[in-house]
Amino acid sequence: MDDTLSLVLFSGTDDKLTAAAVLAVGGAAMGRKVNVLLQYWALDAFRADRIRKDHGAAPEAGPEGISAMARAAERGQLHWADLFEQARSVGEVGIHACSLSMELHDITKDDLDPLVDDVEGVAAFMADATGAIAVF
Amino acid sequence: MDDTLSLVLFSGTDDKLTAAAVLAVGGAAMGRKVNVLLQYWALDAFRADRIRKDHGAAPEAGPEGISAMARAAERGQLHWADLFEQARSVGEVGIHACSLSMELHDITKDDLDPLVDDVEGVAAFMADATGAIAVF
Amino acid sequence: MDDTLSLVLFSGTDDKLTAAAVLAVGGAAMGRKVNVLLQYWALDAFRADRIRKDHGAAPEAGPEGISAMARAAERGQLHWADLFEQARSVGEVGIHACSLSMELHDITKDDLDPLVDDVEGVAAFMADATGAIAVF
Repeated sequence: MDDTLSLVLFSGTDDKLTAAAVLAVGGAAMGRKVNVLLQYWALDAFRADRIRKDHGAAPEAGPEGISAMARAAERGQLHWADLFEQARSVGEVGIHACSLSMELHDITKDDLDPLVDDVEGVAAFMADATGAIAVF
Repeated sequence: MDDTLSLVLFSGTDDKLTAAAVLAVGGAAMGRKVNVLLQYWALDAFRADRIRKDHGAAPEAGPEGISAMARAAERGQLHWADLFEQARSVGEVGIHACSLSMELHDITKDDLDPLVDDVEGVAAFMADATGAIAVF
Repeated sequence: MDDTLSLVLFSGTDDKLTAAAVLAVGGAAMGRKVNVLLQYWALDAFRADRIRKDHGAAPEAGPEGISAMARAAERGQLHWADLFEQARSVGEVGIHACSLSMELHDITKDDLDPLVDDVEGVAAFMADATGAIAVF
């Protein structure tokens, strides 16, 4: 089978983005091509003016979960943006902003962090999604 | 590899359902067979008496996200039900209600929108899930 | 294609865990190898001291959804932990705790329910993820 790993990022909370980034690193380390599509709230989190800000966590995290995440960061857990950089440094990683979600947020490529390669339609993303598709 | 695209719809909010529907359209446009399984809150959203009603968004959307979604609808962004219809018009798309979730909601096939083809067990769905599986 | 089914469990609510467990049962029943990675809040739900406790549901469930889940349990719907046991009894199922999430919660293997086979890094999980990857 084609071992391309396609990641659809929908959620923009730090826990989900970190889980997805960790999978991207693992996939790239295995020599898999990794394609990321940023939709909805995940795209918003990749805006240049807020990528390093606090993006919260899923409601179920609760105060205990939030504290655990803060402690992990203090202990040196990499930010998800750094993890995506790391994935890119070890493998072939493309990060694409979904064109429909760009319209939703009424933003242009200039509003996004340089981590994002380009703006792409879902059809183009799906044309490359020849292996597993994981949605976060 | 088998290019069948299996979509498991769990969430019933309009943002998640739209993201899934857009992927279904993209997959169908690529000539892929698309199988959708409706579980839990997504199944509830496909009930005939509420499919076009407001289903809200993920908590992280916030007021700003809700406003952005409303503006997108005003600008002509298709409803996710229309997107699933569109996927069906360009490709082979099956939409199946999970039998366990039918029991959960205590509903019958007659309670569902005609978009839904049939009620199916998870084993039957998995028998057809020979390619990528994306969960929304 | 390789029919291994890799399930990434992120959420720790009973609705999501049940949906994932049902898919694991369906996959195992089809003769597929099933690998489960427990991350973040899902890992917390597999702690020995709380696996059978109430883990709530997604916010969108609402009071009506919570009631429906309670009624399903009364009618005999198996707990998700039982469903994972069932999957294991019919097929080859591995349940792995993500090492990064173990650090996040500051727990050891002894804190986890015996359902969990071992602690594994994401790279090892991805090395086995040669088929579909479904994230819950």
